[in-house]
Amino acid sequence: MARYLVSRSDVHQFIERCMKAVGAQSSHGSALAKVLVEGDYRGHYSHGLNRLDIYLKDLETGICAKDGEPLIEKSTVATALVNGNNLIGPVVGNFCMDLAIQKAKDVGVGWVSAYGSNHYGIAGFYSMQALKHSLIGITCTNTSPLVVPTRGKKCTLGTNPISVAAPALNGDSFVLDMATSAVALGKIEVHQRHGKKIPVGWGCDSKGNGTTDPVEVLKGGGLLPLGGNEAAGGYKGYGLSLMVEVFGGILSGSLYSENIRPWKETNRVANLGQCFIAINPNCFASGFEERMSDLLKIHRSLEQSEPGLPVLVPGDPEVLHITECEHHGGIPYHVNVINFMNSVAKDLGVNLIPTNRTIDP
Amino acid sequence: MARYLVSRSDVHQFIERCMKAVGAQSSHGSALAKVLVEGDYRGHYSHGLNRLDIYLKDLETGICAKDGEPLIEKSTVATALVNGNNLIGPVVGNFCMDLAIQKAKDVGVGWVSAYGSNHYGIAGFYSMQALKHSLIGITCTNTSPLVVPTRGKKCTLGTNPISVAAPALNGDSFVLDMATSAVALGKIEVHQRHGKKIPVGWGCDSKGNGTTDPVEVLKGGGLLPLGGNEAAGGYKGYGLSLMVEVFGGILSGSLYSENIRPWKETNRVANLGQCFIAINPNCFASGFEERMSDLLKIHRSLEQSEPGLPVLVPGDPEVLHITECEHHGGIPYHVNVINFMNSVAKDLGVNLIPTNRTIDP
Repeated sequence: MARYLVSRSDVHQFIERCMKAVGAQSSHGSALAKVLVEGDYRGHYSHGLNRLDIYLKDLETGICAKDGEPLIEKSTVATALVNGNNLIGPVVGNFCMDLAIQKAKDVGVGWVSAYGSNHYGIAGFYSMQALKHSLIGITCTNTSPLVVPTRGKKCTLGTNPISVAAPALNGDSFVLDMATSAVALGKIEVHQRHGKKIPVGWGCDSKGNGTTDPVEVLKGGGLLPLGGNEAAGGYKGYGLSLMVEVFGGILSGSLYSENIRPWKETNRVANLGQCFIAINPNCFASGFEERMSDLLKIHRSLEQSEPGLPVLVPGDPEVLHITECEHHGGIPYHVNVINFMNSVAKDLGVNLIPTNRTIDP
Repeated sequence: MARYLVSRSDVHQFIERCMKAVGAQSSHGSALAKVLVEGDYRGHYSHGLNRLDIYLKDLETGICAKDGEPLIEKSTVATALVNGNNLIGPVVGNFCMDLAIQKAKDVGVGWVSAYGSNHYGIAGFYSMQALKHSLIGITCTNTSPLVVPTRGKKCTLGTNPISVAAPALNGDSFVLDMATSAVALGKIEVHQRHGKKIPVGWGCDSKGNGTTDPVEVLKGGGLLPLGGNEAAGGYKGYGLSLMVEVFGGILSGSLYSENIRPWKETNRVANLGQCFIAINPNCFASGFEERMSDLLKIHRSLEQSEPGLPVLVPGDPEVLHITECEHHGGIPYHVNVINFMNSVAKDLGVNLIPTNRTIDP
């Protein structure tokens, strides 16, 4: 089936229109648009336009604040605690990352912790802000419970993503942006829709037993942590997920673990906890970017195990997707996504997304 | 087969004797003894007495420095770059972690990067120093190449461990201490010795293909990153391993990746890179330890999937081992380990480890 091709600016403006229609502060609409467009542009469609309706719903119902600014509650030259004031995640995220960057420029490292936040889109958006200043950026966030701890049978942890971005020479970079679960929920859903089994290690049933049936995972089961079952190393992914809870939720005083509202339940405030860190390589050994480029080159030039599958470094798959978008002159979208968004637009009474261009899949 | 039971102080003194015999500075012998005894006490036998001969050999051959102190080369109120002066890892690690702790007390976070270091034993030893000051501790180190990147066929990354320790109420704590590989090399070796197959996802052969034959892994193959093969999420473990390289090797200016000397090859300087971070929870939301205790309780009290296998949190398996040691009044050692160490002792002309106590396995 053909896909719609939409320019980044058309997607951006569409998101701004929708945000304005639900009464969001203009700068907040712009902030959300930037993050969601970047998600799609980098190929993380699950975290782009596809999620706009969740943000809109949270704003429409008043569960999420429509205006205001985050507030610094406590700070040192190197740290800050920020109250996100229940604003949308991108507004909180930009505020905190900017603050971390400033502190890293001043004293070498900035560590900012936020509570009262909401879903902030792709984590990589924030860590990558540091690259513009030749800094290393790090962020993580807790999320709604979807992951079952090793040996347990109940979801008490989110997919709790972590992102680390580090600059190399000539605009090249390392951008790790990963959930600490084996896979995202979306991958399970796609397998269910296609009637396909899932690989061992992705999910478990309601008794905590590993399963290859996506239906079992979605009906009372849950995702497994990175590593899969205990013998395969899943206890490490479980540990990493808890680590994100410590840096995101426990340090900031937000909600955490099983106390966070269930995924897609929007009748109460999310109060997520997030962490934003920037590090100035100039405060350490000189020549950081040269060594980064060498590290990336070592790996990209490795002899590959299978023909056609080159060894990549974190961030390369996203760059490949961006190259594809640039080649086509827009972001390719599945027809269903655009149709759904345009039905949202009709409800809100705003202009639709232009759909005059298509490409073959 | 019965095991020898040796008191912590007897092991400690034995290590000091051996270190003195190879000409190490007295305080360095004591530093190494503390780390190795703690490794065994916590049940990480692969990182305790079992590795003493590697440290001794590095010192005897002069590949590793016998005396001196690490040097701060650059610093801000929140960061430092340290030259480890090719001293043994525990000396560099203690110096750097103390520095990070002081900075965290001063400005909320301390980020210390060291080059010119050596193997430092269990990573958890350093992160846990922060607990004594009610701080969060983090450390990671690069290591000799043993791990094959996703889609590759050559080892370019170490098992690159990371440890995070966070204090809870009444001396309780969260202590994550994990290699970013699926398993440690030792686990593959044990399976080989017993003629047993290894689970899918632990290792690959010399062509980069996953294998369940430990011999294939040990002869020209390698360990797989946490997550196993690409479909199961191994690319995330590979990304985490690279992240440790960035924080350990690239930031500090040490050797990194495939340039680090092969495992157990001791004819050249290791020049490892390590990272030590401390964070002061008081600079963020108050009540950190209360929330930590609650997070741990939520997980420890979860209904378990299988009878007899309680849900644990990172650090619990080690506490169980410590309890066992306390019950026996000493650390239980496999006879082979003690016999080998005593053959080392005879070569050095020092008093043997007391072996007058044994327990059944």
